[in-house]
Amino acid sequence: MARRALTHDQLVSGVRRGDRRALARAISLAENRDPGAHDLVAELYPETGRTFAIGVTGPPGVGKSSLIAALVRQARALGRSVGVISVDPSSPFTQGALLGDRIRLSDHFLDPGVFIRSMGTRGHLGGLAEAALQALLLLDASGKDIVFLETVGTGQSEVEVIGIADAVLLVLMPGSGDSVQALKAGIMEIPDVIAINKMDHPAAKTMLNDVRAIVALDPDPARRPPILLTEALRGEGVPALWETLEATRTELGEAGELEERRRRNLVGEVLAVATGRARARIEDAIAADAGLTELLTAVQRREVDPLTAVDAIVAAVLGGAGDAAA
Amino acid sequence: MARRALTHDQLVSGVRRGDRRALARAISLAENRDPGAHDLVAELYPETGRTFAIGVTGPPGVGKSSLIAALVRQARALGRSVGVISVDPSSPFTQGALLGDRIRLSDHFLDPGVFIRSMGTRGHLGGLAEAALQALLLLDASGKDIVFLETVGTGQSEVEVIGIADAVLLVLMPGSGDSVQALKAGIMEIPDVIAINKMDHPAAKTMLNDVRAIVALDPDPARRPPILLTEALRGEGVPALWETLEATRTELGEAGELEERRRRNLVGEVLAVATGRARARIEDAIAADAGLTELLTAVQRREVDPLTAVDAIVAAVLGGAGDAAA
Repeated sequence: MARRALTHDQLVSGVRRGDRRALARAISLAENRDPGAHDLVAELYPETGRTFAIGVTGPPGVGKSSLIAALVRQARALGRSVGVISVDPSSPFTQGALLGDRIRLSDHFLDPGVFIRSMGTRGHLGGLAEAALQALLLLDASGKDIVFLETVGTGQSEVEVIGIADAVLLVLMPGSGDSVQALKAGIMEIPDVIAINKMDHPAAKTMLNDVRAIVALDPDPARRPPILLTEALRGEGVPALWETLEATRTELGEAGELEERRRRNLVGEVLAVATGRARARIEDAIAADAGLTELLTAVQRREVDPLTAVDAIVAAVLGGAGDAAA
Repeated sequence: MARRALTHDQLVSGVRRGDRRALARAISLAENRDPGAHDLVAELYPETGRTFAIGVTGPPGVGKSSLIAALVRQARALGRSVGVISVDPSSPFTQGALLGDRIRLSDHFLDPGVFIRSMGTRGHLGGLAEAALQALLLLDASGKDIVFLETVGTGQSEVEVIGIADAVLLVLMPGSGDSVQALKAGIMEIPDVIAINKMDHPAAKTMLNDVRAIVALDPDPARRPPILLTEALRGEGVPALWETLEATRTELGEAGELEERRRRNLVGEVLAVATGRARARIEDAIAADAGLTELLTAVQRREVDPLTAVDAIVAAVLGGAGDAAA
């Protein structure tokens, strides 16, 4: 790939017109924590807010990537431009296993209306949320109508990534017993839409009934998410799922809920990214400050208790007292 | 309940001799973020490090609490003293559903060799890890031989809590398909011991084979965790599970791995607790500083981009520049 540097202005205009190379370069800057990425986002931010960002979450192996690929095909058939950001470490997107893959997402590699990017979960906690937020804003500024954010639905960084989404699609499959239990126990938040993929499986109907019974526990019928059966590899149920996602977008918009969610999400993301930065500062301080390293050794020797060490670190990094009683 | 205050010295000596009331009071102080808790932990810390802390994790509904109850009975039959800390919001321990419960953990409520405490997940992220760490150190100082830490295994605060454990027991049941997929995909860390509970279920054997096949992928046989079938309600398989946990303790100790893990865990906990404090500081700053509140409103209006707001918040709370390129 040609690596001739694009200037800031070239990147801005390239992202604006949806140029693949400019988008790819801009997102790489964000992943590499290059200050240039922030400059781009700062300039383009006033133009954002038009994309509908759908978080696609669920346990590994349920076919999230295949379902996204099928939804991308559907979107393209309808003339919509689409972005995909995957932060799921178990995703075929992330593992680069797409070319020649049965998902045939490679169909879209030459389509200028589609931009697909997987982001590594390398680096410290919080860094991923920051990079994913920047990538979403860049795809938004590039005029993508829909962006799918694929996450695996466990781990704090994934939760922070999905916190940017306007709506959440939970993908399950027959056998997703733990997720059903987690929904039932209130450990997992009820999403906007649920797809039960691999609908050909003999246990699909049972799974559908189990999930229906759980969402029916909400006394407000308006808050019960639609549940659809899909078979991503054959595209079955995908048009209906697409229409449901479109209907969700319309309903959220009409109820003013979309704007409200975006306001809430933005504050949450700012807090998450700032906390990620704080954690990085703390890690750096521990590594660089001989006194703090020595203190941690004393904790390991059971000479200084862990909270005294926390107080000292907090005082060194944040200033003031350690906040034990905050 | 009598609420006559115990003095610091009474609490220290009470915890030291395993007095229930002193322990309960001391842990409440930790939960309430009372500085008195830190004073207690600081004084007692040099006496800790004797307890074996077993993290018990797994999806909701698999019977973690029942299995812990059965293990507590086993421990008591062998004359061992036991502590239980539950931070699983879906646990019957946490929901206070124990008295008269079929688990009959109430059997142990009058037994001075057992101390059970559930901790709410209320409060901001990080606060729970801090309180659980203090509770574990207090139970350790009280001379408990074993402490079970029950967590649901999702969410950052639960991960931080289990980060204190010396060893991890993963509990699954037939139907835990998502967890099996997560183990297979490398999303979930391989634990020290796996129990497949509800062994009477017709699919138990299939689950056992599935899990066996996954752990067999590790080329080093020594790192493959033992997998046991249990039926917690009848106590079946529980003596074997207990022996396996004891053997794990012995092996870890002989290999020097236990000390190494504890050193690593302590540093990780200090970092997690310090990050929790930083997050609380950031939240407080956003709430208290009119300029920062205004900045967030500008972000919501798409006038100021989110990362500029992050920079300002980081500079206000941590000082210096915003670290965008750190």
